[in-house]
Amino acid sequence: MTEAALANLKNLYRIFTVPEAPDSTLGRVDQAISQDVATFLQKHIVALERSLEDIEKDFSACSVPEDPTFVSDYTEFLKNKLVAQSVHTAAPGFVGHMTSALPYFMLPLSRIMTALNQNLVKVETSKAFTPLERQVLAMMHNLIYRESEDFYRTWIHDSRHALGAFCSGGTIANTTALWAARNQLFKPQGGFRGIAEEGLFKAYQYLQCQGLAVLVSRRAHYSLKKATDVLGLGRDNLILVDTDDDNRIDMEKLKTAYLGLVKNNIRPLALVGIAGTTETGHVDPLEAMADFAAEIGCHFHVDAAWGGPTLFSTTHRALLSGIERADSVTVDAHKQLYVPMGAGMVLFKDPKTLSAIEHHANYILRLGSKDLGSHTLEGSRPGMAMLVHAGLSIIGRKGYELLIDLGIERARQFAELINAHPNFELITRPELNILTYRFNPEWLQSRLPRLVPEQQLRVNQLLDQIVLEVQKRQREAGKTFVSRTRLRASKYAQDEQITVFRSVLANPLSDEKILSAVLEEQCAIVRETEVQRLLDQIRILLKSTENSL
Amino acid sequence: MTEAALANLKNLYRIFTVPEAPDSTLGRVDQAISQDVATFLQKHIVALERSLEDIEKDFSACSVPEDPTFVSDYTEFLKNKLVAQSVHTAAPGFVGHMTSALPYFMLPLSRIMTALNQNLVKVETSKAFTPLERQVLAMMHNLIYRESEDFYRTWIHDSRHALGAFCSGGTIANTTALWAARNQLFKPQGGFRGIAEEGLFKAYQYLQCQGLAVLVSRRAHYSLKKATDVLGLGRDNLILVDTDDDNRIDMEKLKTAYLGLVKNNIRPLALVGIAGTTETGHVDPLEAMADFAAEIGCHFHVDAAWGGPTLFSTTHRALLSGIERADSVTVDAHKQLYVPMGAGMVLFKDPKTLSAIEHHANYILRLGSKDLGSHTLEGSRPGMAMLVHAGLSIIGRKGYELLIDLGIERARQFAELINAHPNFELITRPELNILTYRFNPEWLQSRLPRLVPEQQLRVNQLLDQIVLEVQKRQREAGKTFVSRTRLRASKYAQDEQITVFRSVLANPLSDEKILSAVLEEQCAIVRETEVQRLLDQIRILLKSTENSL
Repeated sequence: MTEAALANLKNLYRIFTVPEAPDSTLGRVDQAISQDVATFLQKHIVALERSLEDIEKDFSACSVPEDPTFVSDYTEFLKNKLVAQSVHTAAPGFVGHMTSALPYFMLPLSRIMTALNQNLVKVETSKAFTPLERQVLAMMHNLIYRESEDFYRTWIHDSRHALGAFCSGGTIANTTALWAARNQLFKPQGGFRGIAEEGLFKAYQYLQCQGLAVLVSRRAHYSLKKATDVLGLGRDNLILVDTDDDNRIDMEKLKTAYLGLVKNNIRPLALVGIAGTTETGHVDPLEAMADFAAEIGCHFHVDAAWGGPTLFSTTHRALLSGIERADSVTVDAHKQLYVPMGAGMVLFKDPKTLSAIEHHANYILRLGSKDLGSHTLEGSRPGMAMLVHAGLSIIGRKGYELLIDLGIERARQFAELINAHPNFELITRPELNILTYRFNPEWLQSRLPRLVPEQQLRVNQLLDQIVLEVQKRQREAGKTFVSRTRLRASKYAQDEQITVFRSVLANPLSDEKILSAVLEEQCAIVRETEVQRLLDQIRILLKSTENSL
Repeated sequence: MTEAALANLKNLYRIFTVPEAPDSTLGRVDQAISQDVATFLQKHIVALERSLEDIEKDFSACSVPEDPTFVSDYTEFLKNKLVAQSVHTAAPGFVGHMTSALPYFMLPLSRIMTALNQNLVKVETSKAFTPLERQVLAMMHNLIYRESEDFYRTWIHDSRHALGAFCSGGTIANTTALWAARNQLFKPQGGFRGIAEEGLFKAYQYLQCQGLAVLVSRRAHYSLKKATDVLGLGRDNLILVDTDDDNRIDMEKLKTAYLGLVKNNIRPLALVGIAGTTETGHVDPLEAMADFAAEIGCHFHVDAAWGGPTLFSTTHRALLSGIERADSVTVDAHKQLYVPMGAGMVLFKDPKTLSAIEHHANYILRLGSKDLGSHTLEGSRPGMAMLVHAGLSIIGRKGYELLIDLGIERARQFAELINAHPNFELITRPELNILTYRFNPEWLQSRLPRLVPEQQLRVNQLLDQIVLEVQKRQREAGKTFVSRTRLRASKYAQDEQITVFRSVLANPLSDEKILSAVLEEQCAIVRETEVQRLLDQIRILLKSTENSL
């Protein structure tokens, strides 16, 4: 080995060695980062005003740098170019998406998780993390299904079964639920060796059906579309059923949709209830859905990615009643369990259901091992369950109850603010802690329903543009943030969607003062920018209408 | 609000607030954790000797704790019950799995990632992280495909396309590749609206085929079995082709397998080459496979989850030549890019391929947005790309080259150690940095090939038991760790598998001294425990054979 090669090797060793003293270079960088992060988190702005196209310039070199960079130089780059230009999802004024603040203790605990670098796919690379993850699954199972202590004693650490699967998020959780349901329906029977082995084409032929459908309300999360595509069912077979005025599945229309399927020899694979729709936070009538699923004999899945933790609340858990009858339930820990991004779960009522997707290999996941990887869609996975365990332990049921109750209370306060404000119209009232509204001044609100359909449509289109422009400008300004979506509003023409602001009240620090500020900023944008012209167009339109009368 | 409720609320606010001073309670906990983690990482043992059943006792409570716990009490619990009982994957003596040491700088940088809590599914919750992830995908694409600067300038930040998809790991990466290939093959054509919409059953009917197969060597990672199951193809249609003596796909047998499919009206969906098999680290003849895939007109995917970073090495990159002709390539960053668990990627040669799995929704992933989530199987995802970016920048191509070269060199040294040792037999010679071997003393090695088949089988079964017992005891003792698997060895009866130790040399601190210690510990286990009796049984068996001659 040459001397230069030896020197390089020494540097390499140093990179992989833990700094002994806090005053070493790496120790100092380490402390500086902690300090910078704390400073950033204390700032209550959402983002700096800089366009994405402009930011892209800093991330456009497209080959791996040839030579190493000093850690200190790199962190300087990160600080100026990445941290400063990221979105402050923890800011109290960021009330537009489901990503919110984290309890501060998650930061040092994440460090433990990263440093240990366990791989939960197998016991050999995770040891105590495996029983810990099984415990978290049991706790969440218990929260939903409330089985007996005996039940949990039997199943919690059973090597051949799993009460659920941990995964990176709700999309994989929903996909895993439908995958298990599909394989369960087409399990080995008679001369058929099961869909896992023989595939979907032969499965349909064996059971003589023309298709397999998933029934859900039109407020379904888009991950269900992905799941039906991936699993080979086809998006056509995700049957989106109309909702009532409160964005809950219409049971009559569900029954009609089911009869339509039967006529075409399409089997219902699963009925999916939503506990907290992504866009409006509403909860489907889970009891009625459970009854219906039992009646037609199909898998009942509840997507409680958002609303699951409502079960912590003595006051509000009844909203989800019927969830305990679901065959499977999705819950995201990185949403209302306040765990960092990348932690989802799917729980199964029957601990044997996941056997339908069991996998083994020679070098890991051997039959009879306690390796968690034999029942998951993902392979290698980090020890995120530790952070869920930490949240459940440190915050406790009562702490989560407080958070849930507070969020729902805040959403109601915000709805009142909107109702009382001369410039806004509440579109969907909050059932959990999500609501939608739009810019629509009082003088217009009273006249809009009386316009003829074509004119109503034209005015709504102009209001859509206002909402869109305001949301965009507000996001770019970076002081506060709400998201936007399009949905049907029962009081206007049923077949048209309107554009609305969407607000998610999950950060306990987003108090009424901040919510008022959100509205005031939106008013200011209309008042002080070109958006005003759109409002003028509406005025002119209304005037010409009145003149023509 | 009652006074008690107000007090609770105050506590809640405190949890979500960043500690101002380093000498606050949380600040102190924070520092103590950093110190504990450093101490743990400096210990060079793999695990403490305690059985899993025993550890499970600490993780068996199955309801969410009712009351909150102090952070300091909880971290004390973690330290004693979790950290102490986890696997020290970074220990230089842990040479059995693909999880290895992390560069120390990953720890403070992970803190930035966690604190910012970005969600990469959309720009609105990630801003600068979106161009950063696109840049990382471009850099990795460039490493594999070496397209022109113009190519990257065109595609890197193109809103309608993606050069690849970031995901939690190789399993999702492989599934995404086959999903895109499936949807591309059955894209909208004539009266058929495409498999994404109509599903697999109608797709097969439209193209009049009886099945869709994936061809790969029998050394394939088990994720491909999962993928064929999930995607509806059926595991039967994962065609495992025999390998040559060096665990590379046998091209003649591949051609025979293909002809068998054609006869049964089964279409080849994809041919999968492996660049670094999980069990033995061998690389398939990628050039020949690329030729064959072109000949039969199917998607060519390369699973380079392990071996991809070999491309950094000027000396060894030729081992993977042909990879640049693949339609898609899987690379895991949490393997040989030394990034914490949970970072995989799939890259596509043609930036338009991922359009086959494109998804949109009303509130995010709107058409024309730069949201990364429209081309990924997962939904919400953390900003792991930042850590890949950090690795590529701080270590640089030359640093990774050094790591790759060192690993391969170490594996060769270890192979020499094994060959020179009187008690071990090398089973698969290392091509990259993975090898397999077994306990098989010299006096037995020379006689084993001359035994009649039944006796050879019997002896091999006893040797299997020795390897199994030694591996188990070594793992439990926790000083060093190798894994085990079962595979065919060309020098013994071809249809039987034998049990072998498997060693992965990726930690630069796993030097020759440590590798010698691994072997010595294995010898000591045979010598000093009941395993010795298995060896005695072999001696008796051989003696009776000789007497009978």
